[in-house]
Amino acid sequence: MPGAGTDKTRRWIAEPGPVFVLVEPQLGENIGAAARAMANFGLARLRLVAPQQGWPNEKARMMAAGADRVLEAAALYPTLAAAIADCRYVVAATARAHDQAKPVIGPQQAAELVAPRVSAGDTVAYVFGRERNGLENDEVGLADAVVTLPVNPAFASLNLAQAVAILAYEWFKTVSGGVLPFAMPDKSPPARREQLLSFFRTLEAELEKIEYFRPDEKRETMVVNMRNIFNRMQASQQDIRTLHGIVTALAHGRKGPARGGVLDGTQAELLRSLLASQAQRPAPDSGGPTRG
Amino acid sequence: MPGAGTDKTRRWIAEPGPVFVLVEPQLGENIGAAARAMANFGLARLRLVAPQQGWPNEKARMMAAGADRVLEAAALYPTLAAAIADCRYVVAATARAHDQAKPVIGPQQAAELVAPRVSAGDTVAYVFGRERNGLENDEVGLADAVVTLPVNPAFASLNLAQAVAILAYEWFKTVSGGVLPFAMPDKSPPARREQLLSFFRTLEAELEKIEYFRPDEKRETMVVNMRNIFNRMQASQQDIRTLHGIVTALAHGRKGPARGGVLDGTQAELLRSLLASQAQRPAPDSGGPTRG
Repeated sequence: MPGAGTDKTRRWIAEPGPVFVLVEPQLGENIGAAARAMANFGLARLRLVAPQQGWPNEKARMMAAGADRVLEAAALYPTLAAAIADCRYVVAATARAHDQAKPVIGPQQAAELVAPRVSAGDTVAYVFGRERNGLENDEVGLADAVVTLPVNPAFASLNLAQAVAILAYEWFKTVSGGVLPFAMPDKSPPARREQLLSFFRTLEAELEKIEYFRPDEKRETMVVNMRNIFNRMQASQQDIRTLHGIVTALAHGRKGPARGGVLDGTQAELLRSLLASQAQRPAPDSGGPTRG
Repeated sequence: MPGAGTDKTRRWIAEPGPVFVLVEPQLGENIGAAARAMANFGLARLRLVAPQQGWPNEKARMMAAGADRVLEAAALYPTLAAAIADCRYVVAATARAHDQAKPVIGPQQAAELVAPRVSAGDTVAYVFGRERNGLENDEVGLADAVVTLPVNPAFASLNLAQAVAILAYEWFKTVSGGVLPFAMPDKSPPARREQLLSFFRTLEAELEKIEYFRPDEKRETMVVNMRNIFNRMQASQQDIRTLHGIVTALAHGRKGPARGGVLDGTQAELLRSLLASQAQRPAPDSGGPTRG
């Protein structure tokens, strides 16, 4: 979802959220991208355990793409134990089984489990390991649960900031009830059946005039198929007014004075017999369009 | 979820999946990161519309972190219309309302809507716009639905590859039934109540010997609280065997020959009266530990 969409007039979401802890992140870029993803999903509490390139980090700032307040408020800790000392519940994110007798949950379950604790005022942490090696066994041992993602087992290692993004997304989806930032524009109300039938009458009458329904034995099937096309659209009242206008404009344009009008059924019959009676003679001009 | 976790012996997931189309991506890094996220979630069909830095791109390869087969199979198109020409259903990802009368859905709904079409053999596309400007109005117009994310409205613009990651994640979560790559290791079965009670008997008997339950009127509350601590653990049979062993080791260590043993209730009473009768005299040595 790149591109605009940010509404600067909206208040930065101030709801309490979990703390995200990055353990010994190697690249500033990943810290910045993680901060950006946190901001996307209304999270603001970032803790860094011994970032390997020092802190602050210019590449982190560049990748944060405006989520500066998350970076500026980031807290530094020497060890994971120090970073989670005040936490009542800790979830360790890992792509690797650590063989510890600890519940293993998915991102959505994690959000559902963490959300009531956070709203009860508990400090809760999601802990993420190093880009290359993830979390050590003893670090996972500090957590109450392990969160992992349903992944392609043949290619399971996620980019650090993408793991952060997915866990932050599931968090925000849970606490926001999944409300999307915009919806289909308010359409006019759905078309009433009678409006649809009136449109069908007009359309079919106009098609009748130009002998669209031929041969006659296929007429009923053609009408049913055509009506179904329009039924499937789930048209609004405005949609039907627009379609009605289009059909009328096409029909009137066709028979307007500039085009010399079209023949009705009787006139067409007469023309056909006339043409049949003239068929022996050479056509005076067979190059022009036969139907306007 | 950085770190290992990839199992090279597992077959690359070959199930059909949607096509992901990136429209005029600016940075090779983002293409590579998108390919990696696709591979994480079992997707392999990448289409690029006029990548701005040309193709192939070395930075894309570096960021793909091994998802080379996704990049190598990526197809190039001059326009979005060409890239989706064979698609039966198209979802446009955008963070911005485009004011088009088109269904707006979330990532999970998108996956639920797309999955049956894909398994029916239809080619389905998710379309992503440019890093800075997203999709044009007329490009969104080519789609059947718009997918957007529940985001912080004050910071709505996602990194391109993270948007790809979240939609790919929801796709894979849906088609895999959310099965996680590993679970809590098979523990021994839950402790039986009788095993727990036997443990309580041992623990309480050992604590009794060292007069832990004092004063006597708090005894019952102390026992109840202590039992509840162990009840809350949901211990396995192995857990209880381990705890039983720990309690016995501590108790035996304390009264072992090296420590001179502990006093039972009667001996302790005798010692206390002896000490009381000696209280007038100065203590020969008050610096040592009073409890071993």
